[in-house]
Amino acid sequence: MDCICQYTRSLSVSDADGASGRTPPGAHPGTRGPIGSVMLVGAGPGDPELLTLRALRALQSADAVVYDHLVSAQILDYARADAARIYVGKERANHTLPQDEINRLLVELARSGQRVVRLKGGDPFVFGRGGEEMQMLAAHGIGCEVVPGVTAACGIAAATGVPLTHRDHAHACLFVTGHLRDGTMDLDWDALARPKQTVVVYMGLKGLAELARELVAHGLTAATPVMVVEKGTMPEQRLVVGTLADIDQLVAAAQLHSPALTVVGEVVRCREEVAALTRHAMEASATSAA
Amino acid sequence: MDCICQYTRSLSVSDADGASGRTPPGAHPGTRGPIGSVMLVGAGPGDPELLTLRALRALQSADAVVYDHLVSAQILDYARADAARIYVGKERANHTLPQDEINRLLVELARSGQRVVRLKGGDPFVFGRGGEEMQMLAAHGIGCEVVPGVTAACGIAAATGVPLTHRDHAHACLFVTGHLRDGTMDLDWDALARPKQTVVVYMGLKGLAELARELVAHGLTAATPVMVVEKGTMPEQRLVVGTLADIDQLVAAAQLHSPALTVVGEVVRCREEVAALTRHAMEASATSAA
Repeated sequence: MDCICQYTRSLSVSDADGASGRTPPGAHPGTRGPIGSVMLVGAGPGDPELLTLRALRALQSADAVVYDHLVSAQILDYARADAARIYVGKERANHTLPQDEINRLLVELARSGQRVVRLKGGDPFVFGRGGEEMQMLAAHGIGCEVVPGVTAACGIAAATGVPLTHRDHAHACLFVTGHLRDGTMDLDWDALARPKQTVVVYMGLKGLAELARELVAHGLTAATPVMVVEKGTMPEQRLVVGTLADIDQLVAAAQLHSPALTVVGEVVRCREEVAALTRHAMEASATSAA
Repeated sequence: MDCICQYTRSLSVSDADGASGRTPPGAHPGTRGPIGSVMLVGAGPGDPELLTLRALRALQSADAVVYDHLVSAQILDYARADAARIYVGKERANHTLPQDEINRLLVELARSGQRVVRLKGGDPFVFGRGGEEMQMLAAHGIGCEVVPGVTAACGIAAATGVPLTHRDHAHACLFVTGHLRDGTMDLDWDALARPKQTVVVYMGLKGLAELARELVAHGLTAATPVMVVEKGTMPEQRLVVGTLADIDQLVAAAQLHSPALTVVGEVVRCREEVAALTRHAMEASATSAA
């Protein structure tokens, strides 16, 4: 199981020796992939300015863009005017392609010789099922390059002034998904309810009450700060800050909707601290000027 | 502690009411910040193509770029030719500016009216001390905008074909830092040694033997796969894949060096699985063609 290899960029059929698993450095996967391959591209957290240069080039060279509901219209605008734009979003269970139909679509598009970009919100390897799509493509002999993106947690942290780690507050950061199974959340509560840690719950709005209740039941204080952010990094961004004791009511009162991200931990206080520090500095400056 | 607010982009002195904490949407923080402010910018994992559009614009408008050793020369090349480039890296303890001198430098540069970009490897809010610098700037009445970046874990996951989450292997992803204190690692081992979770250790090469030993002592099987990646996403990327039982010897034999990232979890097997699937598909294709 040991191997050591140089960095090259895209997984491809012609390079399947298991050691390098990537195309030669001379290739420019951001601008053109081999015919019959798929680029799995992270679109970032929403703000089109948070697209990477490589993602932009991939979009501009794509013949077909297969995207889900977390990808904003402005980002799709970067694709060529003549590129096929195929929506396979998961917003409402009724209106989505099941994963096996998405898989079939990607395989058919790649085999027809098109340059396919599979565009996913955030990073394709953080709760994006990118790993499953990569494996499925490999099983069909189709190469797959992965272009990482700014994951929602990082985008929202920057957009709200809440660092994910901080020497005083959090030495670790845990990403979990708020997926509900049979009406309950299938989470490792003991792992979530640790001190000096930031927990980010992807898409966790529906189970927010249960999340807060379980975290307190497993040892976090009810005063632990929580922030819920709707449409993070977008112009329509809205957020609610509360504690494990009241976040559920506050979010309900504010009528926040998915897509939303929940951040639990002492780092949430940094927002207030920075505002207070800034106010204080302004007052001091005004006093010295008077 | 409850608040709800619209999204706007940069923390600034004129906007310190604690509710919105951001400049008006009309501002273009990626292209120009208010004089006397600092942009805290994530440079991504190394590959300059993984810079975001906003980070690129920030660099191109900066009068001064204050950067650390995780930022590659190619990324600095995006700054204007006449911009001051100030290295405050932390590669060797001897040759670095202590954090309080970095702080003083940022304050002085901002107060002198320069457009300052504080450029950090990866994302500024994931083990980048970005939170501390933001607070320090606020205490001096200096506005700070944060531009997120592709964090090293996501960049390296994409570059190696190892998804951070996967429905079969990992429902959660934990980022920790491998910082040594008094010769030992100050980590919450019970939180790290969980099933169905990927653990990413930032800069953990020095404590790798202890990390592997403690994870096994706290319940992970010695056969748990581990990947260590040096200079991830860069042309010089090298990696070693092993298990908790042998990773320390393999990394020593391969003479990997920092900066390096360690990924622990079943997801590491996806690299091999994809290679095997691709081989199998190619063989099947060759057979059917014959």
